[in-house]
Amino acid sequence: MKAAIFQGKGKIEVKDVPDPKIQNPHEAIVKVTYACVCGSDLWFYRGISDKDPGSRIGHEFMGVVEAVGDDVKTIKPGDLVIAPFTISDNTCPECKAGETRFCRQFKFWGSDGYDAGQGEKVRVPLADGTLVVVPEKNPDEKMLRALLPLTDVLSTGHHAAVDAHVTRGSTVAVVGDGAVGLCAVAASKRLGAKRIFLVSTHEDRAKIGKQFGATDIISVRGDEAVKQIKAKTDDLGVDCALECVGNPDAWEICWGAVRIGGNIGFVGVPHDVDDIPIDNLFANNVGVKGSGANARAYIPELMKDVLAGKLDVSAIFTKDVKLSDIAEGYADMDQRREIKILVKP
Amino acid sequence: MKAAIFQGKGKIEVKDVPDPKIQNPHEAIVKVTYACVCGSDLWFYRGISDKDPGSRIGHEFMGVVEAVGDDVKTIKPGDLVIAPFTISDNTCPECKAGETRFCRQFKFWGSDGYDAGQGEKVRVPLADGTLVVVPEKNPDEKMLRALLPLTDVLSTGHHAAVDAHVTRGSTVAVVGDGAVGLCAVAASKRLGAKRIFLVSTHEDRAKIGKQFGATDIISVRGDEAVKQIKAKTDDLGVDCALECVGNPDAWEICWGAVRIGGNIGFVGVPHDVDDIPIDNLFANNVGVKGSGANARAYIPELMKDVLAGKLDVSAIFTKDVKLSDIAEGYADMDQRREIKILVKP
Repeated sequence: MKAAIFQGKGKIEVKDVPDPKIQNPHEAIVKVTYACVCGSDLWFYRGISDKDPGSRIGHEFMGVVEAVGDDVKTIKPGDLVIAPFTISDNTCPECKAGETRFCRQFKFWGSDGYDAGQGEKVRVPLADGTLVVVPEKNPDEKMLRALLPLTDVLSTGHHAAVDAHVTRGSTVAVVGDGAVGLCAVAASKRLGAKRIFLVSTHEDRAKIGKQFGATDIISVRGDEAVKQIKAKTDDLGVDCALECVGNPDAWEICWGAVRIGGNIGFVGVPHDVDDIPIDNLFANNVGVKGSGANARAYIPELMKDVLAGKLDVSAIFTKDVKLSDIAEGYADMDQRREIKILVKP
Repeated sequence: MKAAIFQGKGKIEVKDVPDPKIQNPHEAIVKVTYACVCGSDLWFYRGISDKDPGSRIGHEFMGVVEAVGDDVKTIKPGDLVIAPFTISDNTCPECKAGETRFCRQFKFWGSDGYDAGQGEKVRVPLADGTLVVVPEKNPDEKMLRALLPLTDVLSTGHHAAVDAHVTRGSTVAVVGDGAVGLCAVAASKRLGAKRIFLVSTHEDRAKIGKQFGATDIISVRGDEAVKQIKAKTDDLGVDCALECVGNPDAWEICWGAVRIGGNIGFVGVPHDVDDIPIDNLFANNVGVKGSGANARAYIPELMKDVLAGKLDVSAIFTKDVKLSDIAEGYADMDQRREIKILVKP
């Protein structure tokens, strides 16, 4: 079969690799129908994070089950399944507490000799714990595109909203207009936020943000963004600030925009972000919480709304590529020509 | 009238001061029936924080209204009132958001020429916003003692539980067995926590903690306390850690005891506590939130349960003193001979 391989900074190739076979009784083989390129794939692509040349890549995919091992109970051949961006057993104490990202048997796709998502097929470990079956029999392409973001970005945007304690009537500021930030807007709206500020200086992204539920676009950055949000909230600030970037500039806007007693939820992997002085927290009663998302725990709940037609963030897929053209998709995202790339093997 | 005066490190005197009179239309005069000495009063008593000799002291009191200014609408002479430990207007955007501790007209008792709580009478600014009327006409002494902790320590213990997101079924660890820690136990139980660990190496305090709802006493400190809590929670840790001390040792226990995805609520004023590395938060999805309590916002809700006989933390008052003997009360608390002192003017 074919699979995408990282060959060093800026270099992605599609090569022949061995077809996967069940090797352990807890595994399943999934034929990938759709995969994505993730913003976080750009870290190794740009050489910011380390990855060995020759590595299999991709952690967002859905597909149809081809085979299952003897211990697999809840998944069967023919099932349409969504794969969260991390592997989990869904039975350990952390998983039971909803923290599937921190499963005691946690693995990333492509580790320990397992396949990754940007390929034709994937050998899935802990298949019962990891995969989520789509109960609808033959979803049309529109629905498939709406389901795909559950694998990562929609779950991650939801996680930002959950960690910032977005609830009915909340005022929210979303900092970051990438796929995750846009999904955070949709997730906040779904949770009942009454006012959603999206900080975005890109007209095309702001447009999608409005479509997802943003009530106010803040098309400036830094102090000026804070000033505008404060001016529109009785000089109070927002209940919930959602940090969806991971850099100091985005954090600055969050600190400035969140109200006394409000909460910051953060999902941008922190790069060069300052430590938090306890005294500053104490002086403002601001809560801070964030991490990689518990996608496996969130997917069933979010999927209901997707299947009901109430939640569709597929507008983040601004371009489709064939697996054979995936290098072009990486380059498009790297150059910010596209928000997110959908890959068809 | 008589009032307690701070005369320098370790020195409290009761002196004659002018009787208060209404000076502004938003004020009320309250005759104090009960006051308390607070653990935080020990900071200036011990010389840890600065306070000018000659200062009026005390921020926990209740009493009967003697007179009100022309603009006061909700309070009238004869009303029994509870005074939160900070002054607030209850009308600004922060107050409306429930953050009365951060009122735009915030004052501490004893500031700006106003009286403080450890005296016979108090001139109360922003009386409508600050004072809470007790709807019961003639509460007996038992009830009065149960109402008094609303002024500060019960509201503060509740704030720790609120900021740690204690809810029905939560597992909780309370670090700190002073009056606030013990009240945090009671507040957690009230919010429906199913298991409450109290870290306490003092048998008398642990006994009160059990009476307030602690299910497990952890009678060791440091790593050993963490180890015991983990062992009793499937090696997971607790949903909510309540930091009620403010020093690095207490924080260490909280960081160790809280589970992945759990929350730390902190009300101990931080002394020498390390900054929080964002990376550590991100690696554990642990939420952190804390501040001085929004007592004014919490009192009405908590008072209902006190008046209904469902919430009584008066066991924290291990000794009563007359106002004239208040210096003895300070010394008792300083030497940890008593948990909390009730003062009768």
